[in-house]
This record gives sequence, structure tokens and C-alpha cells, in this order.
Amino acid sequence: MSIEFKTITPQDISFFTTLLGPSGAFSDAENLDVYGWDYMHELFSKPEIVLKPSNTEEVSAILKYCNEHEIAVTARGAGTSLSSAALPLHHGVVLSLERFNKIINIDTENLQATVEPGVINEHFANEVLKFGLFYPPDPASKGSSFLGGNIAHSSGGPKAVKYGTTKEYVLNLEVVLATGDIIWTGANTLKNSTGYNLTQLMVGSEGTLGIITKIVFKLIPKPKYNLLMLAAFGSAEKACETVSAIFREGITPSALEFMERDAIDLTLKHNDINIAVPEWVAAHLLIEVDGNYPETLYKDCDVINAVLEKHGCGDVLFAESDFEKEQLWRLRRKVAESVRLESAYKEEDTVVPRASLPQLLRGVKETGKKYGFRSVCYGHAGDGNLHVNILKGDMDEENWNHTIKAGIREIFELCKRLGGTISGEHGIGFTQKGYTDLVFTPTHKHIFREIKKAFDPKEILNPGKIFD
Amino acid sequence: MSIEFKTITPQDISFFTTLLGPSGAFSDAENLDVYGWDYMHELFSKPEIVLKPSNTEEVSAILKYCNEHEIAVTARGAGTSLSSAALPLHHGVVLSLERFNKIINIDTENLQATVEPGVINEHFANEVLKFGLFYPPDPASKGSSFLGGNIAHSSGGPKAVKYGTTKEYVLNLEVVLATGDIIWTGANTLKNSTGYNLTQLMVGSEGTLGIITKIVFKLIPKPKYNLLMLAAFGSAEKACETVSAIFREGITPSALEFMERDAIDLTLKHNDINIAVPEWVAAHLLIEVDGNYPETLYKDCDVINAVLEKHGCGDVLFAESDFEKEQLWRLRRKVAESVRLESAYKEEDTVVPRASLPQLLRGVKETGKKYGFRSVCYGHAGDGNLHVNILKGDMDEENWNHTIKAGIREIFELCKRLGGTISGEHGIGFTQKGYTDLVFTPTHKHIFREIKKAFDPKEILNPGKIFD
Repeated sequence: MSIEFKTITPQDISFFTTLLGPSGAFSDAENLDVYGWDYMHELFSKPEIVLKPSNTEEVSAILKYCNEHEIAVTARGAGTSLSSAALPLHHGVVLSLERFNKIINIDTENLQATVEPGVINEHFANEVLKFGLFYPPDPASKGSSFLGGNIAHSSGGPKAVKYGTTKEYVLNLEVVLATGDIIWTGANTLKNSTGYNLTQLMVGSEGTLGIITKIVFKLIPKPKYNLLMLAAFGSAEKACETVSAIFREGITPSALEFMERDAIDLTLKHNDINIAVPEWVAAHLLIEVDGNYPETLYKDCDVINAVLEKHGCGDVLFAESDFEKEQLWRLRRKVAESVRLESAYKEEDTVVPRASLPQLLRGVKETGKKYGFRSVCYGHAGDGNLHVNILKGDMDEENWNHTIKAGIREIFELCKRLGGTISGEHGIGFTQKGYTDLVFTPTHKHIFREIKKAFDPKEILNPGKIFD
Repeated sequence: MSIEFKTITPQDISFFTTLLGPSGAFSDAENLDVYGWDYMHELFSKPEIVLKPSNTEEVSAILKYCNEHEIAVTARGAGTSLSSAALPLHHGVVLSLERFNKIINIDTENLQATVEPGVINEHFANEVLKFGLFYPPDPASKGSSFLGGNIAHSSGGPKAVKYGTTKEYVLNLEVVLATGDIIWTGANTLKNSTGYNLTQLMVGSEGTLGIITKIVFKLIPKPKYNLLMLAAFGSAEKACETVSAIFREGITPSALEFMERDAIDLTLKHNDINIAVPEWVAAHLLIEVDGNYPETLYKDCDVINAVLEKHGCGDVLFAESDFEKEQLWRLRRKVAESVRLESAYKEEDTVVPRASLPQLLRGVKETGKKYGFRSVCYGHAGDGNLHVNILKGDMDEENWNHTIKAGIREIFELCKRLGGTISGEHGIGFTQKGYTDLVFTPTHKHIFREIKKAFDPKEILNPGKIFD
């Protein structure tokens, strides 16, 4: 389907400026450029106008107007998407949620919080921590990404392995539909069996169904202690095998991250991190356990150590201080940025059942050999979620833009065969749309389209994303 | 909207009998009666034919035929719904899932299981336990209800407070749509950010969107130990207040159940349970903690004990043996059945944010006084989910069938005001439909209807349920 959207006219600009004031609407070329890029910096698609509403009523008025006038609207959080979800492919309006930056309420009686979608993830987590509360979802972008964007992509992060992804913490959403109608999707309760689950339908819908304007999150008590260790393996596949073995011993770590040698080397190269990695190391697992009683955490570590030893782990570095913990976490968190500093790259967000990780890793490397690309693999191994970074290096443009797509497709085909899928936590956006035929049948697409129309009859919201 | 469905003809019967064999399709009056009732035994609505397919292809052929011929189809599990969701209001076909009773695979590597929807909850939990694995959702009906029905209602149970409801364990579903099309809703992975979340849309949809034919569940390691205590309070409201205070101390119990005096007395009256309850007791909290290390569970209990004392708990009975634990759990589990033995009743599945429980309980009692009904309250207090059983006793039919509905409405209005909703784990079905105007706006209903049509264009599946 090819939709024709209306080009923004001076009358439209006048309407928006009257509604939002001059600081809430701008269309000068230079400032628009910023909103034509996202974090991936691969695609550029410029909006015709950027709007910065401050409250639900303004969002409603904008959408009502755009719906009547058939103007495309793309919601934008902090622009940290790895799937180009925030890019205005059809130009029109970029609706920035940057002014929705208030924590409305932290309810310490019910362990809930009500926030606006433009609050930065880490800021929110720090604020609730002041009350001894824990908001676990911690995507790599947590220092800059907005909570609304996290919901739109069903974001994960290292803590997801024990605590679940963003979706597990969303109780209720205030959403503005394309028509301007405002609804709450659910209730502020831990359980709800009242009608279709619109809350979870919004989670992961990447701004295609409505604009989230308020969020009610569930919080949990913050565990008091944690222990962290870095386990070195001579074989990356052995490291992957170890992952499912740990769970089989009855332990659920609060983080279980994998980094292959290349990821570690790039990170050490581009950062000031003081960790010596011997020649023989092919991969690391970073393993954290948490809880309220330190003595049992040590026991958990004993169990984990036994598993590590049995699976050929060569060395375990146990973080002895908060500083050492922070060093190890920096090693893991800086991988993505370091890859970026090294080369242009494509990041694939593969996900499979946890025990299939060794097969996935082997397949990725074989595909790389076949198509002549270097891949750097790391990620949330405890969830079976492996980030495969394919480096451009000195590859020519033809290969980079065309040939290796067949290789990426082979990797996703493998994910599918292993019971997995093509995105664990980054979303489809535009970047992965070319591969969705592997996982969406015509029936899926029909259902998606009809759902989309139920919320957004003229399909003005984030057109061109997820599916056609 | 009033839909006209076709009456079953001899040709239809012949088609179904050819498809399923004579044992798979029956339409004799006596046997049909059984399928015209559900557990509530309040409403009777007889199907014209009952079909018992054995595999996905047969379900697909049935739905394709019924869709073409505009025959209503109501899926039925074990018929244990408390919202009349399995009653064939428009007659037509009851599609019984009773032959879908196989556990297809327990994957001890990935901690997953693939099962058919007609497997009984408790049977499944016991089978995975043989591998040290835990399937936490444990509705009161677990001894008879089917897993497919649990999913259709987003069922909970005592363990939900720590481990979440059914929805948290559903990774992927094979679903037959009304057209006969067969889809998988997601992938067998712990994380998934690939398109709209059709899996969670199916959960809680009460058979109105499709027929679930296979389920992939997530499992977790079974905690090795648990401790159980029964805390007696002289004031029911004080008991409710204590609930949120326990969480605020950083403890997440694996069960936190509330029973008011009437619930306890009725249970002791109708069951052989040897627990002495002194005169002064107005309510009990049943509190369980679990984990892998007994020593820390005792510490958790110390923390809980301090909270109990601070909130006016008069006595704590600590279960010293498995037998004593079983006695205490029987006291809780037998409440619903005991109320049923005492009188006709209506069960309202109220749910509010946890800290609002005292207000909800007070409101229920005030409403009871105003409308002259006796209520017995108990339930999953840790989730803010209070089952309000309204007893008929010697109330006249006019009051029972009409007048007290205004009282029930007032209770639900209170739930709404407190941030809650009208069902936490039982669903809407037909029983609660008359109150949904409190929580569904016309916009919600429009979205529901359009979603319904995306899956079921002729609206043949479980017509008359959840919304019109």
C-alpha cells in the first residue's frame, strides 16, 4: 500500500504555532535536520515540521488536526532507536515527546509510579531508588533513552533475564489515538482480566497505534546486595553452552551477559578500562546474582562456579569492590559504542531459545565466512538474545548495501529454525522490515493491518514501519 | 449489534460426523445439556451440537465450515469459568478441547514446555515438577481447569503475587482463526520485539479471537523451600492494611492471601479441617515465602513478623510440617466451595491497587448494609484482588435478580475510583458484561470490535461475550 500524505502548508504551520506557541513548533531547515537522523545515522528522512507539545490535550489537538488533514505523524523520544523507528519516512510531523519529562507520582504505598513518556530511563530508576524501589529495565541506552520509547520497542537490557523486559512493568497507559481520542488502556492493578489487553498491544507497537502520554509502572523492592563475576572461556561456544546449564542448576542470575573476544578487544581499545585479558580467552560471561542476603549470594556463586568449571571455564574474576563491579559493567556497556567507533556496522538483534545459543553463534560465524564479513557478537545470553554486529570495515558499498543482506537473511532464517525470531528488544522499525517475511505470514500482516486501522483509520501514525 | 446465526442442519451434522467420526460429534439432547451449563450453574444455554476435535487440522476444518455457514462456535475447556465464558449463548457449536490433552514436550534445556490446551493445570504443574521445574499459575480450579481456559481468562491464583499470572508464562500460541487459518502468535523466546504482541492479545480474550491449539510455556526452576504462616487479626481492615506494609519492607511473599472471619467459619463448617479459631479473630492472612535457602526464609519471616506485630496481629500460627502446611492451604482453597455449599452466591472479582484494600473492604461492607446482602470476602490480597462473594441466603428472587445489581455496581464504581477494575482474574464473559460501561468507553468498544473483526470477520467465535 502506498499512502499519499499531504504536504505541510503555511496554514498548517499557523495552526500548530497558534496551538503550541512559537517555541513548540519549528520548521526551519537547520533544526529539522537533527530530527531527520536517528542514532544509527544510516538513513536520513527529514520532517517538514517538528512539534513539541507539553500535555495530553495538545497531543490530542495535533492528532485530530493531522488526521483530518491526512498529515503523517511520527512520534519521537530521544531518537535512540536501533531500528530507525523514529525516522519520519513520509516526512510530515515529527511529534517530539521531549517536554513530557515529569515524574508525576511515585506511590510508595503501592509500589507504582506514574510518569510522562519523555522521562529518561536512568533518571527514573535513580529517582525511585531513593525510596528503595527498583525499576529493572535497563537498555544500553538508559542514560539517554525515554521511557516512552522503551515501551514502544519493548526494550530489554541485562536485568531482563531475572526481572523481565519493559513490558512486565507497564500496568496502564494513557494513549492518544490518531483521531485525537484519549483512552487509558487498562487499570493501575497488578492483575487485570477485563477485556482485550490493549496495554500489551501498545507495548512494542513503535508509535504506529497511538501516542503514549502517561505511563503507570509497577515497581519492586530493590534487592540489597549483588555479586558480580567475569568468567573467561577458551571457546566462545563453550561459554554459550554454559548459559543454559546455570539455569538448570536452579539459579536465575540477575544478569548473564556474553561477550566474544572481538567485543572485549574493541572495548578495551576504545576505553580506559583496566582489565587484563590473556591470549587464550575467546569469550567472557558476565554473571551477576542479587538478593537481600549476602550469604546466599555466595552460595549461588559456588553453584555457578561449579557449573563454570564443568563447562571448561578457564578463569573467574570476582569483583571485590563497587569500583571493580563498575569496571566490569563498563566493559560490557561500552561494547556497542566501541564497535561504532571502530567501523560502520549493522546491528542484528537475534533471539533464540537460550540453549540454542551455541548453534546460533556457530551459524553466525559460518555465514560471516561465506559472505566475507566480520561480526562482533555479544548480548543478553541469559535471554538467548545475541546482538550480532556486522562491521563494514573496508567492505565495498555494493557488498555492504546489497550482498551481505543475503547473509543477514540466512542468520535470521537460522533464528527462525531454532524457534527464535528477528528482534528480541530493538523492534522492527524500518531497518528490519525487509526480513519480516520470515516471521510474518500474510495472515499476520492482515491482522496487523486491521489492528492498526482500529486505532488509526487513516494510517497517519509512523507510516512505513513494522509492516506494509 | 444482534447477529443472526444459522441453526445447525442435518447436512451440518453429517459434515461434522464425517470429519470427526461419530464419537467426535454428538447432538443428542441429554448429552448436550451438560455443555449448556458451566460451573456457576446460574445460566443455561444449550448448544445444538458438541464437537470434539483431536488436532489442529480438525479445528481448522470446523471453523472454516462454520465461518462459511455462519454458525456460532463457543470453545470450551473444562467449563470452570466463573464468568460464563464457555456458555454457548447463541447455541450452535460447542467446540470442546477435551481431546487436546497431551503434553507435547518438556524442554529441560530451555525451561520451556509445549502443551495442548486441554491439559489440566495441576497435572501439568506436577509433570514439570518431576524435572525440578515450576509452572506457578495456580487458580483455585487447578485440579480441573484446562490450561487453554486459564490463558483465555488470564487466570491467576495465590502464586501470582510473586510469580505473575498465566500471561507471564505464555511465550507462543498456535491459534486457529475463524477463517480456519492457522498462525503462531510469536516465537519460543523470552524476549520478542517483532510486530504487535498477538500472544498477549490472545491471553484474556475468552475464546472470542481464535481457538488456541498449542501453547509454549516458559518454566522456572522450582524453589526448594517454603515457609507458611497464618496470621490472625482482630480487625479485617487492619489485616488488609498489613498487606502493603509487608512489601514496603522489601519482602515479596510467594503467597499473601486474605480471608475474613465468615470465609473461615464457612470453610471450617463444611470441611474436616482441624484449626481452632478464637472468638476475637476477624480475619486471617495466609503468608508464604519461598526460596532456595531455608535460613533466609526464616529471616524473611522475622521481618514479616515485625510488620504483623506493628499492625495489630493477635496471633501467628507457623506451619511446622508439610501436613500443617496442607491444612492451612486447604483452609484457603476450600473457601469458594464452602460458600457454594452454604448458599447460592454471586462472585465478584474486584481488584484495586494493593494499598487500597482496606478502603475496598470497608466499601463492600457498607454497600452490603445498604442493600441488605451478606458478603464473604477473601482472595489474593497481595495483588489487591479481593473475591467478594455475595450470598443469596433467604433473599427473595426480585432482590437477588435485580435490586442488588445496583449494589454490585456501586462496588465496581468504588474499584474504578481506587484505580482498579472489575475483574482481576475471572474475565468478563457474560456475567460481568452488564458492568463494563464503568470501564469500557465507546472508544474501547470500537477498538475491541475492530480487533475482533481482524481475527473473526463474521464474529462467529463466542458471540455475546466481553462486549457487544
